[in-house]
Amino acid sequence: MMKALVFDLDGTLIDSSYQHIGAWTCAFRTANIDLPVVEIHRRVGMNGSHMLNALNRTFELGLSKDTMTSLELAHRDYYARLSDEVRVIEGAAQLLQALTEIDIGIAIATSARRQEAERFLKQLMPGPDTVVITSETEARSKPDSHQFERAFAKLRVVPHEAAIVGDSSWDMLASRLAGSLGVGVLSGGYSETELSSAGAFRVYRDVGGILLRLEELGIPG
Amino acid sequence: MMKALVFDLDGTLIDSSYQHIGAWTCAFRTANIDLPVVEIHRRVGMNGSHMLNALNRTFELGLSKDTMTSLELAHRDYYARLSDEVRVIEGAAQLLQALTEIDIGIAIATSARRQEAERFLKQLMPGPDTVVITSETEARSKPDSHQFERAFAKLRVVPHEAAIVGDSSWDMLASRLAGSLGVGVLSGGYSETELSSAGAFRVYRDVGGILLRLEELGIPG
Repeated sequence: MMKALVFDLDGTLIDSSYQHIGAWTCAFRTANIDLPVVEIHRRVGMNGSHMLNALNRTFELGLSKDTMTSLELAHRDYYARLSDEVRVIEGAAQLLQALTEIDIGIAIATSARRQEAERFLKQLMPGPDTVVITSETEARSKPDSHQFERAFAKLRVVPHEAAIVGDSSWDMLASRLAGSLGVGVLSGGYSETELSSAGAFRVYRDVGGILLRLEELGIPG
Repeated sequence: MMKALVFDLDGTLIDSSYQHIGAWTCAFRTANIDLPVVEIHRRVGMNGSHMLNALNRTFELGLSKDTMTSLELAHRDYYARLSDEVRVIEGAAQLLQALTEIDIGIAIATSARRQEAERFLKQLMPGPDTVVITSETEARSKPDSHQFERAFAKLRVVPHEAAIVGDSSWDMLASRLAGSLGVGVLSGGYSETELSSAGAFRVYRDVGGILLRLEELGIPG
């Protein structure tokens, strides 16, 4: 049976995708770059440097390394201003609590820095055993699978005994690269078809929706 | 052949969907209401009062008529603050210009007030013949088809001689209610499948993408 679930944070456990989209939009404007906002939306699930490389190539922006660093810092500043608006997804803490009670391993893997995540981790974490992987623990994050592999090692599971829960096609890609099932949630604004086309084994409205359907993921109820 | 195209404004001709999502999120917070942001996103294509009624029912918010009015005004204020970030979609003005040159009737139909739309209409409008329907001309907007019917009358076309171009499933619903073809664009953050499931005859990346493919809509090139 399934032994562990590894969760993405932004857009999955916390409702922060749209604030990240807004922060990146403002960051690009500081560099006088106007991108279609939907193109930012569909790339926010990647880590910042992957995302900037992707946009740089697709839109032939000719960004220097210095400009990319400035954009990352500008995004960080704008997001910090918007983060008061961010809420934990309804049912997220209850799901993590319930999984802990039935001895399913849980991990949270995020491209964010620990400091950015801290406030939300406090609201989410059911106990000290929760594995948390931030950019300090392992910087190579989605669509790379390294963060997830690090989580599996800490949880002492092999990839096919775990599922990765995320809101973006980049989470689904990383789950395939890691050799685990991918489970999609709609809370980040991707559609069901986008997630299932990217390989999601199942798609739920949000993580709260998983709690009543654990057996669908091979978790004994 | 096709005689006219009627365009939605927000999310279709101008890249404003995410600013509207942000403004509604902030408006709800002023009333201490936390909604999943994606639920706002997938309803912004409706006019404000339809949207508030929909959210009120779905999430059993128990909003009074007064609260709904306050929310609409709060959204208006927040959006006004964010509207400097809004840009015209690349290729939109060129498409309208090209359609005018080949005598295809064009109209813009929006739930917005004229004053909100004015700055963008100036950048978009190819000439004085462009029909513009705002909330002052006809308040019953999407998913109602009244605005589109008003546009058809002004353009002197019958519904099956026109197509409605929009970014949301509400535009596609209104096109079906009006008896016209619906054409989807991805610039508002809906996915291709969401738009085609809602009845889109074709889906383009954005309105700029329509210009090179006019014959796909039955418009002689």
